[in-house]
Amino acid sequence: MTGWNEYLKENTSRYLEELVEFLRIPSISSLPEHAADVNRAAGWVAGRLKTAGIEEVQILPTEGHPVVFGQWLHAAGKPTIMIYGHFDTQPVDPLELWTHPPFEPVVKDDRIYARGASDDKGNMLIPILAAEAMLKTLGSLPVNVKFFFEGQEEIGSPQMPDFISSQQDLLACDMVLSADGGQWDENQPALNVGRRGLAALQIDVQSAGQDVHSGTYGGTFQNPIQALAQLLTSMRSPQGKILVEGFYDTVCDLSDSERAQIAEIPYDESQYREELDLDRLFGEAGYSTYERAWVRPTLEVNGIWGGFQGAGIKTVIPSIAHAKITCRLVPDQEPDQIVELIASHVAKHAPVGAKASVKKLAGSADPFLIPVDHPGNQAARVVLKRLYDKEPYIARTGGTIPVCGSFLKYLGAHLVNFAFGLEDENLHAPDEFFRISNFKRGLSAYGMILEELGR
Amino acid sequence: MTGWNEYLKENTSRYLEELVEFLRIPSISSLPEHAADVNRAAGWVAGRLKTAGIEEVQILPTEGHPVVFGQWLHAAGKPTIMIYGHFDTQPVDPLELWTHPPFEPVVKDDRIYARGASDDKGNMLIPILAAEAMLKTLGSLPVNVKFFFEGQEEIGSPQMPDFISSQQDLLACDMVLSADGGQWDENQPALNVGRRGLAALQIDVQSAGQDVHSGTYGGTFQNPIQALAQLLTSMRSPQGKILVEGFYDTVCDLSDSERAQIAEIPYDESQYREELDLDRLFGEAGYSTYERAWVRPTLEVNGIWGGFQGAGIKTVIPSIAHAKITCRLVPDQEPDQIVELIASHVAKHAPVGAKASVKKLAGSADPFLIPVDHPGNQAARVVLKRLYDKEPYIARTGGTIPVCGSFLKYLGAHLVNFAFGLEDENLHAPDEFFRISNFKRGLSAYGMILEELGR
Repeated sequence: MTGWNEYLKENTSRYLEELVEFLRIPSISSLPEHAADVNRAAGWVAGRLKTAGIEEVQILPTEGHPVVFGQWLHAAGKPTIMIYGHFDTQPVDPLELWTHPPFEPVVKDDRIYARGASDDKGNMLIPILAAEAMLKTLGSLPVNVKFFFEGQEEIGSPQMPDFISSQQDLLACDMVLSADGGQWDENQPALNVGRRGLAALQIDVQSAGQDVHSGTYGGTFQNPIQALAQLLTSMRSPQGKILVEGFYDTVCDLSDSERAQIAEIPYDESQYREELDLDRLFGEAGYSTYERAWVRPTLEVNGIWGGFQGAGIKTVIPSIAHAKITCRLVPDQEPDQIVELIASHVAKHAPVGAKASVKKLAGSADPFLIPVDHPGNQAARVVLKRLYDKEPYIARTGGTIPVCGSFLKYLGAHLVNFAFGLEDENLHAPDEFFRISNFKRGLSAYGMILEELGR
Repeated sequence: MTGWNEYLKENTSRYLEELVEFLRIPSISSLPEHAADVNRAAGWVAGRLKTAGIEEVQILPTEGHPVVFGQWLHAAGKPTIMIYGHFDTQPVDPLELWTHPPFEPVVKDDRIYARGASDDKGNMLIPILAAEAMLKTLGSLPVNVKFFFEGQEEIGSPQMPDFISSQQDLLACDMVLSADGGQWDENQPALNVGRRGLAALQIDVQSAGQDVHSGTYGGTFQNPIQALAQLLTSMRSPQGKILVEGFYDTVCDLSDSERAQIAEIPYDESQYREELDLDRLFGEAGYSTYERAWVRPTLEVNGIWGGFQGAGIKTVIPSIAHAKITCRLVPDQEPDQIVELIASHVAKHAPVGAKASVKKLAGSADPFLIPVDHPGNQAARVVLKRLYDKEPYIARTGGTIPVCGSFLKYLGAHLVNFAFGLEDENLHAPDEFFRISNFKRGLSAYGMILEELGR
């Protein structure tokens, strides 16, 4: 009988076909018209877990998109590892910038292109297949394993805190391995020890009761777009410092050793600029680019709209204008408090003659830190070193996995990054892709880390 | 045989049915998909002119929407009056705010509701019908009359300067009566002696080469929405003063008598606020509301967009953001110069890390002034005084009729406001309407002014 790693190699092309099938499901969690597709993806995942030999597979409802759960608990005396991932995807707009339709996967030059390829369908499929290979070849897993896949990560996991809190027995575990995330680059592994949190809100600025002719009335009352622009400008200095009163009050200063760990990671500004197709970068004074991306909070406008957007001109002053904002948070900022601070700022700075209001949007997440020497990180370090033949960087991620905080709070379980996406793979953007070489590497890596954790 | 005024009264209900028919044509000039409807409206107008007994009716092509022309030139020794109006309309968005579909006219309580009812189909139909009544009852008109109806007023008449310049013989006249515009209110007439001009442009702010994950990269490069907000904020003080360098340099100061004429017009702030459904007004310090609306220039954002506008959140930093701006101009500001000043301002104030560009949009118009004692104004004054039993106010309008400047420049003809819309009739906004009582009054008024001009 062949070993599990040989089994994986023999089945790689079948697994890739299955990934293509999975990627065809347009499981966009933010769009109500795709709710059935999110459910379809849940069904696909549940079926795949059962085929792999995972037991007690169930689709657990929430008030929003469901959770898929399964387990294999026959490794007596061994730790229980919960594997996390998500089967929902981001929206696809602007659709016209995609080379191929986002839900018609294309395999080309070691890459598979599709919405969700890297974030997170390609990554979350890996541990299922690794477990299958072990169960088919060894008949068992080296540790107890639970699988927890959600369908609402891309909308900030609004129901997950309540869900995890109410399912503490079912979800009890020693640690979580996250199959959502990635490594440093194709040749360099990384332990990811921190993630930023998230606070989300919308600002609405209302002026006249309805759209008004800009000739007849222009100049005599507040323009809500101008007022909104003024409000946004009041929130951030031209140098990138956030000016919302109290915004930085709860931010923990970095220790010298934390700054040193980050400074050890090679940084190539021209490459970073190239990734963004930019002539120059921009950010808060006094911090490096990695610090700005990982350990400093942000206030970013994700969308703005108001008035006429068509071709040509329409000489109207709209009655209302809107902006969507998300803040990336760092320890010890709290999402609700940040939304309140911004609401106070907006109330205080609302331009004369306009009514500005702030509403919190779903998607809050606490910032997250895991000790570098956590046993999960130690196991990951061993495996990554063996696979890449390099010490992993001690890095962080600017992005958010909203459930991190809930796993820690309700299950006492830290989340260990163990995934194989790379940051250049156009997550949340047109032409998202996943590297097939990393898909293969991830399959071996997941078998190895389960073995390592079982020692 | 009855007189022309009796003829009008006898035919009012038929005329209203014809207006409904005219209003059913969705002749939105700004939307390419409605170009055929603009042509259809031109055909309808040409047909109606012929039925009225107007001669040499023709639809004259331009590089954009056409002009409908017709004439009756048998009043030897009398002046030639050209009557102006437009058969195109504004777009209808936001459609959801209309009580009835905008191109399914509804007659209710002395009002006819539809896009274009007041601006300008209801108004421009009046002189055709008045001429018909005179021709059917008297067999002649008291002056020589030309009709000039355009299909591109709502997009700023981009082809009209060239067209008027190239058709100087056909269009030669002593003055223009504009059937686009209005009176002060239901009981108060006004001579409109000034209109603001227009300069239109779009600002595009580009940052990264494509939309980017706000977690991964947020904080390290310029957000184009934030940069655009900063640019817009830099253009106007919180007190409403435009800060674009040179913007006011060519603005003529008002004479004391001009300010006095404006100050004579009763102003009811609470009523003005009510029209706009606003708690308070806002505008440039040192000027009254009417001065802000009529004789002071503006810089207004008509539309803004960038990034995600859907439900919930999308944690993206968009690559590009846009704003549409129109400026209302006063003597002696020049549209091209104003666009250049704004382009210079944008170049100078473009936030670090973003590329901002300005493109001029079609729709330029010079500001316009007509002497209060122009013979057309004198005739209008006599007729209005007789119809309303009141002296007309010497007022101005903040809005633009782009062709005014071209009529003066190429034909040496001033444009006299002689129309019957009112400013509360939701021009350019949902639920536009026209008062049927004013439609009827306008029919008599046009007969009377042609007689007055023929004396």
